[in-house]
Amino acid sequence: MIRSSPAPVPLEQLSRRAPHSGCIPASLHPPGRGASRSLPGAQGVNRARGGRCRRWRAGLGRAPRSPPGNSERLCRFPSGGSRCSRYKAYMAPGSSKEKKSDDGQASKENFIHLCNPHLEKMKEDILYHFALGTGTHDFPKLFGDVKFVCVGGSPSRMKAFIAYIAEELGLGSPGCDYPNICAGTDRYAMYKVGPVLSVSHGMGIPSISIMLHELIKLLYHAKCSDITIIRIGTSGGIGLEPGSVVITRQSVDATFKPQLEQVVLGKTVIRSTNLDEQLAKELMQCSKEIGQFNTVIGNTMCTLDFYEGQGRLDGAICLYDEGEKLQYLKNAYESGVRNIEMESSVFAAMCNLSGVKAAVVCVTLLNRLEGDQISSPHDVLVEYQQRPQKLVGYFIKKSLGKV
Amino acid sequence: MIRSSPAPVPLEQLSRRAPHSGCIPASLHPPGRGASRSLPGAQGVNRARGGRCRRWRAGLGRAPRSPPGNSERLCRFPSGGSRCSRYKAYMAPGSSKEKKSDDGQASKENFIHLCNPHLEKMKEDILYHFALGTGTHDFPKLFGDVKFVCVGGSPSRMKAFIAYIAEELGLGSPGCDYPNICAGTDRYAMYKVGPVLSVSHGMGIPSISIMLHELIKLLYHAKCSDITIIRIGTSGGIGLEPGSVVITRQSVDATFKPQLEQVVLGKTVIRSTNLDEQLAKELMQCSKEIGQFNTVIGNTMCTLDFYEGQGRLDGAICLYDEGEKLQYLKNAYESGVRNIEMESSVFAAMCNLSGVKAAVVCVTLLNRLEGDQISSPHDVLVEYQQRPQKLVGYFIKKSLGKV
Repeated sequence: MIRSSPAPVPLEQLSRRAPHSGCIPASLHPPGRGASRSLPGAQGVNRARGGRCRRWRAGLGRAPRSPPGNSERLCRFPSGGSRCSRYKAYMAPGSSKEKKSDDGQASKENFIHLCNPHLEKMKEDILYHFALGTGTHDFPKLFGDVKFVCVGGSPSRMKAFIAYIAEELGLGSPGCDYPNICAGTDRYAMYKVGPVLSVSHGMGIPSISIMLHELIKLLYHAKCSDITIIRIGTSGGIGLEPGSVVITRQSVDATFKPQLEQVVLGKTVIRSTNLDEQLAKELMQCSKEIGQFNTVIGNTMCTLDFYEGQGRLDGAICLYDEGEKLQYLKNAYESGVRNIEMESSVFAAMCNLSGVKAAVVCVTLLNRLEGDQISSPHDVLVEYQQRPQKLVGYFIKKSLGKV
Repeated sequence: MIRSSPAPVPLEQLSRRAPHSGCIPASLHPPGRGASRSLPGAQGVNRARGGRCRRWRAGLGRAPRSPPGNSERLCRFPSGGSRCSRYKAYMAPGSSKEKKSDDGQASKENFIHLCNPHLEKMKEDILYHFALGTGTHDFPKLFGDVKFVCVGGSPSRMKAFIAYIAEELGLGSPGCDYPNICAGTDRYAMYKVGPVLSVSHGMGIPSISIMLHELIKLLYHAKCSDITIIRIGTSGGIGLEPGSVVITRQSVDATFKPQLEQVVLGKTVIRSTNLDEQLAKELMQCSKEIGQFNTVIGNTMCTLDFYEGQGRLDGAICLYDEGEKLQYLKNAYESGVRNIEMESSVFAAMCNLSGVKAAVVCVTLLNRLEGDQISSPHDVLVEYQQRPQKLVGYFIKKSLGKV
């Protein structure tokens, strides 16, 4: 059963609630997109919200930081005539409002910082690749209690994670299946138990980018607050024993710069790929407390290709020799890179812009200084892939006061 | 039952064979990667092949074209000291050898042009994202008769396509299921019936790029010849009635240039994204013969993002206004762009380099000059998505002399 209250649940209350069941009601899925737009609870997106950002400032060079405590950031369109081809955008504070906890302590509730003024004008918002929409689904009811979102490439791994976290949090019931909330499409898979949402994102920057656009809108429409998003994935390590876990300090591109280049309306845009330092430290502390596998904090290189883009010699196309490859990987190591994957840069950039705390936790399946092919036995790889799940599962339990 | 002969089947013989059944034997899947490396028929990749390219020339500016009739192209590593950060690579002729058909006519058989000398040194090749390997699977036996490969984003659509083509070619049997050849992973799905292979590729350039590296190696290891690869997909149209089908003339980037920029060992590489003109014309002729939907030949813009990258106003982040968006789309239209998707550029570039005939056939789900959201009813979208399948299905039937 999913919580029926549309209001977000303060984090500190979650640990005191009776256990949620992980099962999603069958009524979640409408009969078909476009078939019914007037289900009970259906609503548009055109509603007021305190502290919401309206427009985003973008201009030449460094954008001015908001003064401390100014939680509402003014976003303006870049001016048409003098717009520059490159600009930077920095971490947006989540829109926030003050709330009081049960013991009268005041604290701030951080909402999603949606940086798109056009959505206000839309009567409904269809999240096409999730097969969900504000006209057919009651987002606050379905997702309003979400506090932790874990994302990863593989649908089956994200299903396994939801079963794991349900058991860890004492929210699972024996034999309970966790249905795919995005069953109307095979683009992504989504599962939920209590305050945890688990979503697959496929492989590569474009694939996770589509998912994140729709996920951020989903969390916004659901009026979620105080969200933490963690990517749990696999990667190639550099100079690390296979099976090591890397918590990303910065996501860097294939030239080792902590930035993401995107092309928007034909112009190059550069965005910051910093991640939440405090969250990375908390995750590192969790790994020490678990004490089961080697974990480091390091830079993660994010590439657009698995073979040539990561200097592999075993793709269908390879125009360089082993010496050039090794030199490139050694240069990466010297610049602080400890692992390579394909999603972290846009993940960091979009979470920054949306004011969401984010972390990337990936296990290394091999040491790229020693080879390219992933040839470890299946059971060894399966155990490696469980390590980020264990670490993030422990972090969530600890955050909820269940450790 | 899959054909047991490892030798490639001449295209002209295929139409005269008794119908193949589409079912894949259960013995296809080994018990687990790494568990057994010595199945009957297992073989390494280190074998001689006539006409195989060893090294690829890459240097500053335009690479010299091979003289006509010179089917073996010399590939050299770029020289380390003087290597340039940008170079172009052009269409490689497939490695070929002469063969005689039943009536004594001589013709050339085109093999995959594998542009990686390092693979020769590998004892086995693990196609990690397919969960297949030369040490555990007999590629010539499983795939040697493949002549047509159809690729598309969605696993379920590619499964539907294999059932459709099986019926069209008279190769299906009632109630026959088409098992996923890549059942050992959920990264991609692959189905086969007779000479047709159907493979999903997920969303975006990185995702299809991984699939194509492994697909091209699979076809090479299987000793396939005379391969045609067609991407069947969905897209946003520009200035076209929704449901129109676009056969891509050239894939262009977000600045309307017919090229793909990749970063290899930290250096930018630019590759041509031309597609086979003759194949596009043949597909256009097929559409005329079917006469069921509007089809055009036009340029296809390939972007790294679905929302900002395609000028949508409905993503989680949008820093431009409607006027700027429309101007961008009109500029695209004026440059010859008729639809936008997210995979065609690397598809064209990699097929060029591998000497494989390739085409992109995408239906348009909406006219982007009129909106951003895909809001047509589900059944309408399903019918639209069947149009590229119908067109390519008819083309394959015609190529096999079954029309």
